[in-house]
Amino acid sequence: MLFPGSHLLSISQFDRGAVDRLFEVADRMRPYAHRERVTRVLDGAILGSMFFEPSTRTRISFGSAFNLLGGEVRETTGFESTAIAKGESLFDTARVLSGYSDVIAMRHPAEGSVAEFAQGSRVPVINGGDGANEHPTQALLDLYTIRSELADRGRTLDTLRVAMVGDLRYGRTVHSLSRLLQLFKGVKVNLVSPPELKMPREIVEELASGGHQVLETDSLEVGIADVDIVYSTRIQEERFASRAEADLYRGRFRLNQVIYTAHCEPNTVIMHPLPRDSREGAQELDVDLNDNPNLAIFRQSDNGVLVRMALFALILDVAEQIDDHSRRVNWYTERRF
Amino acid sequence: MLFPGSHLLSISQFDRGAVDRLFEVADRMRPYAHRERVTRVLDGAILGSMFFEPSTRTRISFGSAFNLLGGEVRETTGFESTAIAKGESLFDTARVLSGYSDVIAMRHPAEGSVAEFAQGSRVPVINGGDGANEHPTQALLDLYTIRSELADRGRTLDTLRVAMVGDLRYGRTVHSLSRLLQLFKGVKVNLVSPPELKMPREIVEELASGGHQVLETDSLEVGIADVDIVYSTRIQEERFASRAEADLYRGRFRLNQVIYTAHCEPNTVIMHPLPRDSREGAQELDVDLNDNPNLAIFRQSDNGVLVRMALFALILDVAEQIDDHSRRVNWYTERRF
Amino acid sequence: MLFPGSHLLSISQFDRGAVDRLFEVADRMRPYAHRERVTRVLDGAILGSMFFEPSTRTRISFGSAFNLLGGEVRETTGFESTAIAKGESLFDTARVLSGYSDVIAMRHPAEGSVAEFAQGSRVPVINGGDGANEHPTQALLDLYTIRSELADRGRTLDTLRVAMVGDLRYGRTVHSLSRLLQLFKGVKVNLVSPPELKMPREIVEELASGGHQVLETDSLEVGIADVDIVYSTRIQEERFASRAEADLYRGRFRLNQVIYTAHCEPNTVIMHPLPRDSREGAQELDVDLNDNPNLAIFRQSDNGVLVRMALFALILDVAEQIDDHSRRVNWYTERRF
Repeated sequence: MLFPGSHLLSISQFDRGAVDRLFEVADRMRPYAHRERVTRVLDGAILGSMFFEPSTRTRISFGSAFNLLGGEVRETTGFESTAIAKGESLFDTARVLSGYSDVIAMRHPAEGSVAEFAQGSRVPVINGGDGANEHPTQALLDLYTIRSELADRGRTLDTLRVAMVGDLRYGRTVHSLSRLLQLFKGVKVNLVSPPELKMPREIVEELASGGHQVLETDSLEVGIADVDIVYSTRIQEERFASRAEADLYRGRFRLNQVIYTAHCEPNTVIMHPLPRDSREGAQELDVDLNDNPNLAIFRQSDNGVLVRMALFALILDVAEQIDDHSRRVNWYTERRF
Repeated sequence: MLFPGSHLLSISQFDRGAVDRLFEVADRMRPYAHRERVTRVLDGAILGSMFFEPSTRTRISFGSAFNLLGGEVRETTGFESTAIAKGESLFDTARVLSGYSDVIAMRHPAEGSVAEFAQGSRVPVINGGDGANEHPTQALLDLYTIRSELADRGRTLDTLRVAMVGDLRYGRTVHSLSRLLQLFKGVKVNLVSPPELKMPREIVEELASGGHQVLETDSLEVGIADVDIVYSTRIQEERFASRAEADLYRGRFRLNQVIYTAHCEPNTVIMHPLPRDSREGAQELDVDLNDNPNLAIFRQSDNGVLVRMALFALILDVAEQIDDHSRRVNWYTERRF
Repeated sequence: MLFPGSHLLSISQFDRGAVDRLFEVADRMRPYAHRERVTRVLDGAILGSMFFEPSTRTRISFGSAFNLLGGEVRETTGFESTAIAKGESLFDTARVLSGYSDVIAMRHPAEGSVAEFAQGSRVPVINGGDGANEHPTQALLDLYTIRSELADRGRTLDTLRVAMVGDLRYGRTVHSLSRLLQLFKGVKVNLVSPPELKMPREIVEELASGGHQVLETDSLEVGIADVDIVYSTRIQEERFASRAEADLYRGRFRLNQVIYTAHCEPNTVIMHPLPRDSREGAQELDVDLNDNPNLAIFRQSDNGVLVRMALFALILDVAEQIDDHSRRVNWYTERRF
């Protein structure tokens, strides 16, 4: 569960009630993220943003979410070479750095490092990605996006039909999302990948034993028919022995407007954790989909701010005070599209 | 023209009215930049500062200008290697990053990249320099400085006499400034450079056809006599085939107090876009000019904050609200010189 | 002395009165640093954080201290390669950068560089470390910690008994701390090091001529008996010709709970400037001391925020206004330990 003061290290901390609560708070963040209103509820609070592995958009998304609640951000990017080289333990680093902020968002290349850091921290720590292990806020924003897109189409998560497409073996986001789907009932999941890049066995079995309907296929056409959501993923090139090996799979499950029109139900939502590869020969999602209103990839990225705002609000226990510290925005905020 | 919500990509967006309006707002920023008053007009707003090419002073100048209006800054420096390496387009990058802020200031090494980015952005984008193409806020602060210095001496832009000195071929700032001067009448422009580093032909012709009086010379003594402003520039070493080739020109148009006294009118203003090369053998502007009250190079740099504050205020449409959200400064602000 | 508007370049600026005043203000910062109250006394002020040499924790400590007073931070990390490569002087850099902030905290690898920079700066400059020369805020936070820990045990600085242990030759912190101790009377100082890494002669002589009782020894057991404070230091590996040479000394003065119990008085306080080397074979301070309530190393690091807040408050002359701009914290702040 997620309480005031909790660390957020893994999606396994979430039950259905915690997800519902998080998403209800995230919904209430819209007027602030959309620049209709300003809140200063965290005026004077400090986020320690510790990105020991670079990740521009996750880092800025956390930082902007905290700013939107009125707080300040103190940031570190790149490897903390000095102290590590001098032999400092993660525990010591955490004890020291947690004296400088009210909450910490951290990314680190080593699996388990964020949990180890959290042991030493005197303030709540949010996992912003620890290597191949977890990236829980990505999974939460993906699920939040699915829920929002379904709601706009009059449907709910409990009757979800979703296709996950691409590199299901190495793609961290589809693993986490699958685990979150365990919290719901009767989901239909189509897993579309080359045989060599199939979803790990234990995740498939978990889905099946949870009463979900799972279809594994290497046919894009079969997989994307009759679903509400197509969740496309990138070939995780960095996980392959060579670029040549990764290239074997690149472009195999390319989706474009022609394929979409031919095989998808109308209003099928297209998602992707981004960045999408827009080079010739790759194009998991062709740019000709940019005019398709069901392309939700940028709404998905925007939702990351809502979900992270909600996490901060719940962990710092200010969710019910946000509106009290608010006012209308007084500057130009008309968005272009 | 510059409207609320406009991108600022090029000085060609400015007509005389837009320049006058910008400078009038910049004038009103003085009490805030000089720390007599504090305004919180942009309290809650976020600037995305995206410096894909490093530039410490331009980056900090933008950031401080936004802070002085009460806003927050979320910053990225260095090349956004991850997403680019993964094949993301500038359009996608812009769509995503523009979900995190109210306005973006961006520098990027590739010509035209900022305009391409602006196509994808849902918030206004200000060009902080795109390679050899443009650096519009530098040109605007240069012109603002000329206007301010002339005003202090009882003169105006329409009777300006200016000498541009040094590397006029590769110096981006003198190109942009020349183009801005087209908005005024009857300016006298002395172009002082070695024959190999002359101002590009089309810019000279534009000036001439605009009714301005242009003199090209390779004599410093001739060029700096009878002008209000001497605008000195750095040899753009990085644009030459070798350092040795750049060294051929280094120190050719050195200005120091002796030369100034011998050849300039009293009160001739000295400008430079900075950094100035203070190494032996270079010294475009000798340090013995530091005691000359007509050396305006640091006022010029300070004016960058005023001009950038004014741009933010106009683009975000808060220029008329600034004083309403203000109070006196309550901390020590006595400047040393 | 430290006045409103002063630079802070060296501990030699401090007399006893200045130290007392600083510490009295630092004491009053506790409710803000401990997140009981929020103050906005520096709302609208800007700190220029210029870390030309990386130092994550010193940088964040300065930044958080300024945020805790309500101010904003504009940051530069890493070497300012561009302008230096173009031949800009530190004076010019300072003139320009000081136009962007109200106060500057600066670290630079070259001895004397911060003082040189301060010559050109129009705003107060605080030395955050200039190579092997000085790191005055570290010395002040060390002394403040000694005072606080003694006070908790009913003692005062004027009857202090302290052991400095480890690399006393290259350790900048023990040099500065020794010099600060000159301001007090009748201090007993045990200097524990290998003969090759003894405290520099002139510092020992200063201590002795100041009426202090100095004991030099290479026996840890002798040195740490009968003292109030054991101040342990890291082998300054980077100052040795090779890692192998540094390894000769590593682990020589290891302190752990068994040694502590056998040789120290009860309640002897353990300090260390951090980071401590926790690798096998090093362990200046063994992790089994983590449960010892007299291990003050993390309180010491936390005190850095208090001391830096107090410095900003005094230099910017707002020390007496802090409570007027304050309110209770409204978010979750329960610390874990």
